[in-house]
Amino acid sequence: MSSGAEESLEFAPVFDKDGLIPAIVCDAASDRVLMFAHMNREALELTQSSGVVHLWSRSRKALWKKGEQSGETLAVREILVDCDQDVLLVKAEHQGKGAACHTGRKSCFYRKLEGKRLSIVDDVRLYNPADIYRR
Amino acid sequence: MSSGAEESLEFAPVFDKDGLIPAIVCDAASDRVLMFAHMNREALELTQSSGVVHLWSRSRKALWKKGEQSGETLAVREILVDCDQDVLLVKAEHQGKGAACHTGRKSCFYRKLEGKRLSIVDDVRLYNPADIYRR
Repeated sequence: MSSGAEESLEFAPVFDKDGLIPAIVCDAASDRVLMFAHMNREALELTQSSGVVHLWSRSRKALWKKGEQSGETLAVREILVDCDQDVLLVKAEHQGKGAACHTGRKSCFYRKLEGKRLSIVDDVRLYNPADIYRR
Repeated sequence: MSSGAEESLEFAPVFDKDGLIPAIVCDAASDRVLMFAHMNREALELTQSSGVVHLWSRSRKALWKKGEQSGETLAVREILVDCDQDVLLVKAEHQGKGAACHTGRKSCFYRKLEGKRLSIVDDVRLYNPADIYRR
């Protein structure tokens, strides 16, 4: 089961047919998952060279410095890659008020599943999105 | 910026055009990210009904009870959903020897990026894949 990609120390990220690789961002201190997004090669290179998380927005089809509007940038502490080299895990430190989610919450994962319903497990808003984002 | 999906307490998972939703699995105790995979609706329903992580293998195009061969199953403690309801975060407890990765390591994210190279940050093998998987 061991292939080159799994044991290699050469970084050879696998981008999908759209040129994207999934990127999980977690809090470097607590390991809590903050958000999930995608990077293209340019976003990954910018993330590495600047030390600040850059992403590719699939909805806006644009390179995106995370927190550019909100000030909620994420400083990179470590970038890990999975066994198949087709997923990245970015360990980051919150800048700004510490909200990775555009709803103003620390993490995008603030609701848990209970059967067919959701319940909110974190409703602390670190900023008011209405103060920052305009429709 | 607040839409129905973000504040709703109705679970309405967004599956992609292939009928899949990304699923991040983390350790319920430590929050450490263990693996990244996908679920289809059936895998999600089985995960919920059995309390054990089930996935959809894109390479084998098959439903897959995680750990079926290796015994390294993952018991579900909580399933979280992100703001857009298009990503799941499964908090799970390791069964077996505690290796979520098919290379025998606890997590699939055992290498970190340093420039264009990787270095191994976790080389503990909790089982020998050669003992379990046949080519």
